[in-house]
Amino acid sequence: MTNTLQLEALPEVLQRRRQKLAQIFSAPVMIGSGQAPARNFPANTYPFRANSHFLYFAGKPLVNAVIHLCQGKIALFWDEPTPEDALWHGPVPSRDDIARDIGADTAFPLTQLADHYHEAAFLPSQYHLFPDLNSAAFDKASNQKLAEALVQLRLTHDDHGLEQIQAAAQVSMAAHRAGMMATPTASTEAEVRAAMEQVILAAQMACAYNSIVTVHGEVLHNEQYHHSLKPQDLLLADVGAEAPTGWASDITRTWPVSGRFDVSQRAIYEIVLAARDAAIAAAKPGVEYKALHLLASETLTAGLADLGILRGNPQTLVEQDVHALFFPHGVGHLLGLDVHDMEDLGDLAGYAPGRSRSDRFGLAFLRLDRPLQKNMVVTIEPGFYQVPGILEPARASGDYDEFVNWERLEEFSTVRGIRIEDDVLITSGGCQVLTQELPSAPDAIEELVLTGQK
Amino acid sequence: MTNTLQLEALPEVLQRRRQKLAQIFSAPVMIGSGQAPARNFPANTYPFRANSHFLYFAGKPLVNAVIHLCQGKIALFWDEPTPEDALWHGPVPSRDDIARDIGADTAFPLTQLADHYHEAAFLPSQYHLFPDLNSAAFDKASNQKLAEALVQLRLTHDDHGLEQIQAAAQVSMAAHRAGMMATPTASTEAEVRAAMEQVILAAQMACAYNSIVTVHGEVLHNEQYHHSLKPQDLLLADVGAEAPTGWASDITRTWPVSGRFDVSQRAIYEIVLAARDAAIAAAKPGVEYKALHLLASETLTAGLADLGILRGNPQTLVEQDVHALFFPHGVGHLLGLDVHDMEDLGDLAGYAPGRSRSDRFGLAFLRLDRPLQKNMVVTIEPGFYQVPGILEPARASGDYDEFVNWERLEEFSTVRGIRIEDDVLITSGGCQVLTQELPSAPDAIEELVLTGQK
Repeated sequence: MTNTLQLEALPEVLQRRRQKLAQIFSAPVMIGSGQAPARNFPANTYPFRANSHFLYFAGKPLVNAVIHLCQGKIALFWDEPTPEDALWHGPVPSRDDIARDIGADTAFPLTQLADHYHEAAFLPSQYHLFPDLNSAAFDKASNQKLAEALVQLRLTHDDHGLEQIQAAAQVSMAAHRAGMMATPTASTEAEVRAAMEQVILAAQMACAYNSIVTVHGEVLHNEQYHHSLKPQDLLLADVGAEAPTGWASDITRTWPVSGRFDVSQRAIYEIVLAARDAAIAAAKPGVEYKALHLLASETLTAGLADLGILRGNPQTLVEQDVHALFFPHGVGHLLGLDVHDMEDLGDLAGYAPGRSRSDRFGLAFLRLDRPLQKNMVVTIEPGFYQVPGILEPARASGDYDEFVNWERLEEFSTVRGIRIEDDVLITSGGCQVLTQELPSAPDAIEELVLTGQK
Repeated sequence: MTNTLQLEALPEVLQRRRQKLAQIFSAPVMIGSGQAPARNFPANTYPFRANSHFLYFAGKPLVNAVIHLCQGKIALFWDEPTPEDALWHGPVPSRDDIARDIGADTAFPLTQLADHYHEAAFLPSQYHLFPDLNSAAFDKASNQKLAEALVQLRLTHDDHGLEQIQAAAQVSMAAHRAGMMATPTASTEAEVRAAMEQVILAAQMACAYNSIVTVHGEVLHNEQYHHSLKPQDLLLADVGAEAPTGWASDITRTWPVSGRFDVSQRAIYEIVLAARDAAIAAAKPGVEYKALHLLASETLTAGLADLGILRGNPQTLVEQDVHALFFPHGVGHLLGLDVHDMEDLGDLAGYAPGRSRSDRFGLAFLRLDRPLQKNMVVTIEPGFYQVPGILEPARASGDYDEFVNWERLEEFSTVRGIRIEDDVLITSGGCQVLTQELPSAPDAIEELVLTGQK
């Protein structure tokens, strides 16, 4: 594991990827990098983020560039900045310099793009980037085949991709340590978020997604940071860095604001940790990712049964979707150039051919349903949440009275949301937790938080 | 000056604005808030930023909402979250609650929007938000009149707007102090940027624009942060906070990495400071903003002549655009709900009716050409830059040899870029510098930077 970016090897890395694409997809392909969208007026844009498929083959976040891939060859289409652009944005490498850096065989201005549209395949998600493309070119069967070929390539990562994910994970781990240590002197969620994102920015990375830093972990996609921190709160932080090359990481930790889990919090935390450990212990090539989800769910129901919150056999409880009352999302997802890798293609990457989302409450939110393969990276992120919108109707319905001891559950009312999320590389014999160095055991978490006391 | 948000007064503030609109524009108006654009896949969006005109009348950053304004009345169109949304995003106020908070007279689901299209005026920049609108409704003369009415309203700010700008400016000033103090222990631009943005995030604000934090201040729109800091460098930081209500601030300071300006740096810095001070001293209602630009430019040429870099009378030098060799941008812009206020409407806000951009090199980049009015807020931001793309051709041409002592200029080669930018409220008798508390005098800057030494 190293932080050094192997930039010197980039042309070879990219060439290998392009040759692999040529082996499984013979037609020419065009992929655009896109542009930064406006925030409140055209000149005030959001930070640019290049399309991930473009980054996979071109390696550099070029604004408004297109690559044409054919039989392992790559042509770059990109307009050099005007002298006036250079005045405002500084000197920029020439088109030929960039072509050399990414190993492009030829390079053209964008005006010559249309000459290459003929016969090329496009990603449906990118149609808007080629507005002058003849509409007859859209929705060709080859476009769908292109998406499938890209999934096949990007499902598993080469050494360069893995190194980039690891570099991002290192920074994310440092951000989480900073967040834990900032907590004793922070008075709001926003202050902890700021301490975490500072680490990411200082490392010249970006956030791979909008951070979740909240004492209301039961709100799964909470993107507000205004709550004050109270000593009895648990703080859930789901924060991940993205390398300048676009490769992502994705980590969640949950820690006590006071630096000490209370008895209820520690009991539930240990169960979530056991669910994570069980899923990781079972992860290896050939194993179905859904099996990890079910294993984590069963570990969760077993633990909750031991605490007297649930009644019955763990497997039966999961078959009845009782786990989903407390763990209503999937155990994780693919991780790569996107934090939910290739989700721009819908479920094409997440779901193996012929599979689709379950309509079972306990499975519908699973983003990944494939057998694991060597060099896949997935997240493992079980959780326990008390979501009023789920638990109140469930209790009122009486449907779960056989399985849930609602009175016992009330004794854990201060535990609103816990999630533990790690990034896991599938290896030949099992897996490697890329985020292992970041503490997750409750004692170690407490120690880190307490380090921040003044 | 206070940090307290007058949220209790919001419905009255908004109502007053709507009534003022009704006085100058009688047709019904529809304004949409917009949605967050996708970053790399649909579920991974950039942070949402509501349209500024929407915020001006509705006060809250509601996602995918539309307001219908007519004769001082406001109708809100917004869809309440589904139960599933609430599961993921937490409890959200009802449509009626929000309608009450913003003082809306009526509230409807978005499906009823089309019933209100008839006769309404739309902002041209928002046409994409109303995709099912009959195309005949576009490009009506009333749409242009609406834009003009909005400019008339938003050119000057009410107490609520001013308070919000001041709150944002307070946080920006704290961010700049943090950046100065972080410099002695930082090794890259990115680390200083991170220290500054941490302050903004911790205060529950956002960046009003992509920060510029660079030792290459001569690259005017530099959005990279990878350079290492060297003791002889000047660091230019253009960083501003935006309040949750959308109101912006915009501050630039330039400080020596070592904590000590060298003789050349201090000499040029003092000239830029004098240009800022001259422009501010002249700012009052009725004065042309362009006159401030010319005054700052003349102060700059006078100072450079004193240093022996330029030759000739300051006015003549400016008439010959010699100032623009070193100061190629305008002295500032409108500030309000947008950092370049209302630039979504092009130059409609910046340029008084009948005026348009000059094709003179020394004036073309001026974003504001209007007489100042009480309760306008503008930035004043003169600078001195040695842009190779400007100076090298200018020297090679020989055209400026009469005015520029190129040999003397070489003695200042370490001064690549200096800018000093403040936010200025036009008052009845003159102006108030909203960012006055942040040091700009060289001694005070040095003292702050040196405070950060360990």
